Amino acid sequence: MSLNDKAVTAAVLIIGDEILSGRTQDTNLNAIARFVAAHGVDLIEARVVGDTGPALVEALNALRVRYDYVFTTGGIGPTHDDITADCVAEAFGVELVEDPEIIARMTQQMGVAPNAARRRMARIPVGGSKIKNPVAGPPGFQLGNVFVLAGVPRIMQGMLEDIGWRMKGGVVVTSKSIRVEGWGEGVLAEPLERVAKAHLDLALGSYPFTMDGGGYGSNLVIRGRDPALVDVALEELVTALQALGVDRILKVEA
Amino acid sequence: MSLNDKAVTAAVLIIGDEILSGRTQDTNLNAIARFVAAHGVDLIEARVVGDTGPALVEALNALRVRYDYVFTTGGIGPTHDDITADCVAEAFGVELVEDPEIIARMTQQMGVAPNAARRRMARIPVGGSKIKNPVAGPPGFQLGNVFVLAGVPRIMQGMLEDIGWRMKGGVVVTSKSIRVEGWGEGVLAEPLERVAKAHLDLALGSYPFTMDGGGYGSNLVIRGRDPALVDVALEELVTALQALGVDRILKVEA
Repeated sequence: MSLNDKAVTAAVLIIGDEILSGRTQDTNLNAIARFVAAHGVDLIEARVVGDTGPALVEALNALRVRYDYVFTTGGIGPTHDDITADCVAEAFGVELVEDPEIIARMTQQMGVAPNAARRRMARIPVGGSKIKNPVAGPPGFQLGNVFVLAGVPRIMQGMLEDIGWRMKGGVVVTSKSIRVEGWGEGVLAEPLERVAKAHLDLALGSYPFTMDGGGYGSNLVIRGRDPALVDVALEELVTALQALGVDRILKVEA
Repeated sequence: MSLNDKAVTAAVLIIGDEILSGRTQDTNLNAIARFVAAHGVDLIEARVVGDTGPALVEALNALRVRYDYVFTTGGIGPTHDDITADCVAEAFGVELVEDPEIIARMTQQMGVAPNAARRRMARIPVGGSKIKNPVAGPPGFQLGNVFVLAGVPRIMQGMLEDIGWRMKGGVVVTSKSIRVEGWGEGVLAEPLERVAKAHLDLALGSYPFTMDGGGYGSNLVIRGRDPALVDVALEELVTALQALGVDRILKVEA
């Protein structure tokens, strides 16, 4: 949820048949979620599509008009199913052209001119700027408000290092939690809702768990852009829980 | 990608601020992807939205008209931010009513009538049917082509056991892979594309990796609904790679 009407917003578009077939467990969404949160940007939505042109173009166009930034991951390698650059160019209605600098670097690294497959990775849409790849292989690129990143998690995370300066950041969200053991959400829900309704600028959530020895517990999380307000609400919540007889309340980080 | 125009299709809608804030790494998408694949159903798209009513209703309506089945996860607990049942009812334009059987079971299990928060979990949209929860707590439900499941992975997976019989299945996709070590995608791309273009009923993908001692490799995956055709294409690919001098080709499961 967006914690403020003026918040800077983002969406993620994960691209790849391997995620939807179940072959691969995605971890890029979580890495980008943490990255944008650290910049005070609210991640509002994510989508996963396969290696299919029309679906990719449609999802990208839906997201890029709605949010301040869109991060895509996957589909920028040299094989026939790597169609992200083509689709981004199509979505923006611009040409996709070989970048001489990338070709030159490939030639230097390999000692020979790149073959047709590798040349595919040197294509950047007109108007795009390269995003550094500090790990291996060719760069990603930015076109308008869209950041096009690799799918391999280590490379994707490396590319994020070249993105922070490109975003207008927001006020970072403060998150504080308490861990309640031995009491289920059925008891915790009422005081949680009461505090939530008293602080509409905050987001209060409950994330239940089962305990190793049996029984229930929940992590109660308060998030907001004003750290003092988060602290006030946290104290109110603890007081309300204690008034109900809830013991075993542990404060935890984040 | 859908491997056949008549394929049975599905989408996943992951619901929860905790996924978009980066607090929680989602694993439900992968579990559902494997589940539907085992039933021959193609997962075409997934979306992640926060605990925000309008976003949830919009996404659900977009997905449920487009795919044969939609799986939602999350937001069916007793707390104020658990709004999935309300939103599903709103999306379908039906009432949300307490199910007397769920109330009776709660009362029996707890020895007292459930409080207001727990009663929230006993609400099912009119026309919905309960999905068994073999782990703990109240059931999920099916309404039309939408399966509404818990967010806690262990409970979500338990609920899947009551879903297979509700779906019309398809022909299961066969997936075979070879693992090529010491050769990068820049070399593998051309023969891969050649075999892909000769078999438009199959999906060929390349999933590169870096090797521990340095250098590159890739898992080349062939997927299709005709196992004999997958085998034929696999042999063609191996032959094409060997003709290029590619050694270190390992056949692997899946």
